[in-house]
Amino acid sequence: MSFNVPRTEKKRVVIVGGGFGGLQLANRLRNSHFQVVLVDKNNYHQFPPLIYQIASSGIEPSSISFPFRKIFQKRKDFYYRMAEVRSIFPEQKIIQTSIGKVDYDYLVLAAGTTTNFFGNKHVEEEAMPMKNVSEAMGLRNALLDNFERALTCASDVERQELLNIVIVGGGATGVEIAGALSEMKNYVLPKDYPDLPKGLMNIYLIEAGNRLLSAMSEESSAHVEQYLREMGVNVLLGKMVTDYRDHRVMLKDGSSIATRTFIWVSGVAAQPVGNLPEKYLGRGRRITVNAFNQVEGLEGVFSIGDQCIMPEGDPNWAGGHPQLAQVAIQQGKLLAKNLKRLEAGKEMKPFRYRNLGAMATVGRNRAVAEFSKVRMAGFWAWLMWLIVHLRSILGVRNKTIVLFNWMWNYFSYSQSLRMIIYAKKAKEVREREQRLASQHWGTDLLSEGAD
Amino acid sequence: MSFNVPRTEKKRVVIVGGGFGGLQLANRLRNSHFQVVLVDKNNYHQFPPLIYQIASSGIEPSSISFPFRKIFQKRKDFYYRMAEVRSIFPEQKIIQTSIGKVDYDYLVLAAGTTTNFFGNKHVEEEAMPMKNVSEAMGLRNALLDNFERALTCASDVERQELLNIVIVGGGATGVEIAGALSEMKNYVLPKDYPDLPKGLMNIYLIEAGNRLLSAMSEESSAHVEQYLREMGVNVLLGKMVTDYRDHRVMLKDGSSIATRTFIWVSGVAAQPVGNLPEKYLGRGRRITVNAFNQVEGLEGVFSIGDQCIMPEGDPNWAGGHPQLAQVAIQQGKLLAKNLKRLEAGKEMKPFRYRNLGAMATVGRNRAVAEFSKVRMAGFWAWLMWLIVHLRSILGVRNKTIVLFNWMWNYFSYSQSLRMIIYAKKAKEVREREQRLASQHWGTDLLSEGAD
Repeated sequence: MSFNVPRTEKKRVVIVGGGFGGLQLANRLRNSHFQVVLVDKNNYHQFPPLIYQIASSGIEPSSISFPFRKIFQKRKDFYYRMAEVRSIFPEQKIIQTSIGKVDYDYLVLAAGTTTNFFGNKHVEEEAMPMKNVSEAMGLRNALLDNFERALTCASDVERQELLNIVIVGGGATGVEIAGALSEMKNYVLPKDYPDLPKGLMNIYLIEAGNRLLSAMSEESSAHVEQYLREMGVNVLLGKMVTDYRDHRVMLKDGSSIATRTFIWVSGVAAQPVGNLPEKYLGRGRRITVNAFNQVEGLEGVFSIGDQCIMPEGDPNWAGGHPQLAQVAIQQGKLLAKNLKRLEAGKEMKPFRYRNLGAMATVGRNRAVAEFSKVRMAGFWAWLMWLIVHLRSILGVRNKTIVLFNWMWNYFSYSQSLRMIIYAKKAKEVREREQRLASQHWGTDLLSEGAD
Repeated sequence: MSFNVPRTEKKRVVIVGGGFGGLQLANRLRNSHFQVVLVDKNNYHQFPPLIYQIASSGIEPSSISFPFRKIFQKRKDFYYRMAEVRSIFPEQKIIQTSIGKVDYDYLVLAAGTTTNFFGNKHVEEEAMPMKNVSEAMGLRNALLDNFERALTCASDVERQELLNIVIVGGGATGVEIAGALSEMKNYVLPKDYPDLPKGLMNIYLIEAGNRLLSAMSEESSAHVEQYLREMGVNVLLGKMVTDYRDHRVMLKDGSSIATRTFIWVSGVAAQPVGNLPEKYLGRGRRITVNAFNQVEGLEGVFSIGDQCIMPEGDPNWAGGHPQLAQVAIQQGKLLAKNLKRLEAGKEMKPFRYRNLGAMATVGRNRAVAEFSKVRMAGFWAWLMWLIVHLRSILGVRNKTIVLFNWMWNYFSYSQSLRMIIYAKKAKEVREREQRLASQHWGTDLLSEGAD
């Protein structure tokens, strides 16, 4: 196997990761004097803010995903490659991937984050994360499967384990999935499962800090907590999860909660890059960059979005920016300009984050939103949330289908996507996955990625 | 585990399989004096006529699937159970399933068919069938994965293997998937993969008989063959596939075709029922039934749809009916009436198949349709095909989304569902699957299905 991208007279920008940041950068380099190579392990861009709605059967993965090849149709001197990046060799200006090596003039690391289990290997093995479309589909399947099994399981203890849901992490994702699942509990389950004893399903939202949505104002936290409690979610603040054993989530205070649906959305860590020395990493193992998103000391290497941290350089954000879509998008935009300036022999411009606000929704008519001058809660925040997210989804077809699904669900109080579907893997795919899994990631020496 | 359905004073009808026949029967038994128990291994009804469009990225699985629990919301004395049926014990009037045993007063076997590999174990291991939503999703993923790999593979031989597609079986499914994939080849691939050498992708449709669509008229066969050839499909008639080795499909005449996409839609066999003596089986291992869909000799046992064969009883169809949705639907309707008549002490009515015709589509504006008095080909047949299929899809939401997708694809010449997505399985699900797979299916003795 080989990466198989022809060298032209243009300089080559290799972008690792087609999330908000990488996609923005690739788009803005259209009609530039660069050859652009986009590497992503999935062949589609996904829209993380709505991933929780996949898990709660509200929308389909395809509605918030968009194939890269479709996005970049007709684009000249652009190459997409489906591959996992293993390691970087900055001296040779080469990265090693699962399909071979590729050399770069400029490298932009925009691979985002992965779920952070804070070193707890046992939790990592048992918990269900919800960072991407595949994990969310898996969670949907597991949830529905547990409800089915609750009807026929052997004991009351097991039934309770199957119906309890524990969500660890009171950030936006935790709040949103707790809200969506409690709507499912209130509106859908009684109709779908009339023979399940009512009131057995409990949803727990556990947060180690003393309030939900710690990135937003205390006012918003209070609103969201009230909403969730009204909807029947058990919000546990100041509780630390230490382990998960025998279908019980163990808390530091000695108590425990029985569940087989143990959802972990408690934090993120930057995607690791093999071979990148420790000294380049900052808080949360994010790659340290300067005000131009440059990795200082590595020529031609940049990092944008959640994968990087800019501890200095942006006067209003000393210590680093929040890991939000807007930061990644704005960094992607600026880096496109800066790369062009660099080529033209001009000075690069430093990054200044323009805070567009933050929002989170808990359920129908219930959301919180904060903009520079306005704070909202309730219906108007919820409507704003809908509009902002709908606008951000890629593609007219996807916008239409998501809007249709939302309206349908809003008026019917019932999604109809509650199917347990696994794609059956072809034999070759299974075999290749096993082969890849048995290889050691991230520390490959520089070698041809032979198959 | 236990099946956990309470016995009421009503007689119990256990329906195995929620396809066209089983669903129709369950629906028609609404407001009857029966308790209805529906057993299906999937928690959703699927719509087989459009499954091929999942494989070709035209529609989503969710658009042609509908959760059973949603269909039967508010239905009284109705129970759905997600389970696989293992064996039948007609003397005790019990079936054994993966979640325990259940007794019946009436048992209706409506589990349909599975792919027939005609005993060729090696082909079974290597080929990709397309009988259900999961397999079709898997096929879509494998196809897209092969295109990606074709860009970076090591040799020209491998590239050719990755781009060739071989479809075995010239029935409706084979014809329709060949047509859909050739549209993908002609309209989508050149735009999505500008760096793939043109003309390398070849689609082969192999049929052992001397014409395609042998269930329809010779005129329709000729039309369809002409359409496919115009669209660039290599139609091979009178060719037998004997094996698949080293990424080559072997033909009986000694020739072979290189491919890694080996799609097998060559025939079906009835779903086997463990413990059912051979003497009850007819052609294609279908369960032999009389004119009332009764399995003679087994008290209270019926079979409808593709899983059964009615060699005598329907004067116009000596030897058995074709395995079509309409047969199953009409048998389901009649059986609902007959069960009610039986309970009322009336005589049952024999089944008479009312042939509503047959149709197949090859691509945009290209289809064939045959009704009792009219034969059509081309645009009008295609439009008729769209209308008939759209009408048959369950649920307004699904109808709307399929129509939207079809119109979108028709005018844009490009679906946007070309994502490779596998649902990530939770650890418990993986473990349970392994446990189930290691058990011996179909021959269980009558025992509590303890977990």
